[in-house]
Amino acid sequence: MLSKNQIKLITSLQQKKQRFAHQMFFAEGIKVIQELLESNFELVNLYTIQNDFEQVSNDKKVLVDESDLKKISALSTPNTCLAVFKIPVEKKIIEYGLILALDSIRDPGNLGTILRLCDWFGIGQLICSKETVDIYNPKVVQATMGSIARVNVNYIDLETFVSQTKLPVFGTFMDGNNIYKTELPQEGIIIMGNEANGISSELEKLIKNRLTIPRFGTIQKAESLNVATAAAIILSEFSRNN
Amino acid sequence: MLSKNQIKLITSLQQKKQRFAHQMFFAEGIKVIQELLESNFELVNLYTIQNDFEQVSNDKKVLVDESDLKKISALSTPNTCLAVFKIPVEKKIIEYGLILALDSIRDPGNLGTILRLCDWFGIGQLICSKETVDIYNPKVVQATMGSIARVNVNYIDLETFVSQTKLPVFGTFMDGNNIYKTELPQEGIIIMGNEANGISSELEKLIKNRLTIPRFGTIQKAESLNVATAAAIILSEFSRNN
Repeated sequence: MLSKNQIKLITSLQQKKQRFAHQMFFAEGIKVIQELLESNFELVNLYTIQNDFEQVSNDKKVLVDESDLKKISALSTPNTCLAVFKIPVEKKIIEYGLILALDSIRDPGNLGTILRLCDWFGIGQLICSKETVDIYNPKVVQATMGSIARVNVNYIDLETFVSQTKLPVFGTFMDGNNIYKTELPQEGIIIMGNEANGISSELEKLIKNRLTIPRFGTIQKAESLNVATAAAIILSEFSRNN
Repeated sequence: MLSKNQIKLITSLQQKKQRFAHQMFFAEGIKVIQELLESNFELVNLYTIQNDFEQVSNDKKVLVDESDLKKISALSTPNTCLAVFKIPVEKKIIEYGLILALDSIRDPGNLGTILRLCDWFGIGQLICSKETVDIYNPKVVQATMGSIARVNVNYIDLETFVSQTKLPVFGTFMDGNNIYKTELPQEGIIIMGNEANGISSELEKLIKNRLTIPRFGTIQKAESLNVATAAAIILSEFSRNN
């Protein structure tokens, strides 16, 4: 049985301000919760319809029914479980190998999908500009499918970071070098721009390596790719020969 | 000023059954509407806050205010215009070159993003199983960013089609040949599976060319890629050397 205060707290965590104030976020579904538990995220409480998750001690487990779960879920069709975790302290940026950097990505689904991509391609570090959607937004957590537990994510002033790094900096533009014909290194920072406006002009000035994903076919009227699919192609190209 | 009947008709077009009954769909935003107008989609009515779209005759143009637009929009933040179009007659399948086939893709955002990818890579033909989300779903139309006007889309019995085609048939699995090390032809059918269940077992039997997108890094715990990002990597590989 859920108390009014519990419902109020959990639903408030859909807002970034409240997540920050409480230093908590929530995840839904067995798979994502399982991955977070395995990755040492600190569990606050688990709300579950079934009495599953044997590794969770009883004092943290709250048995609920479907109508309770509906009250706290951010999903239109709630899962069977929801868990509140503490937001971990941001770790230090791992400044070697390939790093993906996001300049004001606004769509939670895009951010979650990109995090999942990083996990697939063994990219351990994701850097987000402060304008990028919060990684602990419930829609982002959901879209990561558990990958949130395995990629280091930092929110920083991207311009300052990029102007100071010793790694080569890459960005994709309509007028860059053909990515399929460019020799790509095993380390560097790859910047992906905002969904509507691309890479900001301030950051663009700091990018020495301009790449382009060429279009194919006879019509060539497509104006752009979705940012997550563009990231997929770029990470695939950086990885395929290494 | 909008009549009650107009509002009722347009909002009803959010449902597939009603789109089918009326043989109409709607699109929102200047860019998408512009692309549909340029591509000979038959306009029924344009609802606009500004008196834009000079090429549209006045008898089809309805000037509305923001509150009117909010009543008919499928977006949480409505654009400045919404247009109702007739659903065009399905064209014949173009059975040559590269064809992308979707086996029960359920998420409208994924379908729209994949259509945009097809447009970018010059894939003129997309084939969808009958269980795939409807291409004229407002969320799909929105996510295509206008590419819906340039890719031929057919809904068919995918098993029957794949069992009869003379083109080579490709699918991605966890145990296929490394896509980066396989010579890929300039024609063939590439099948993408459902978000949760992958390619159905019936279709899998018909796929002679099993591919895999390898994972990278030391952890390798990522279980899968989002279907649109997987499609991006596959189309990129099929295109890059051709």
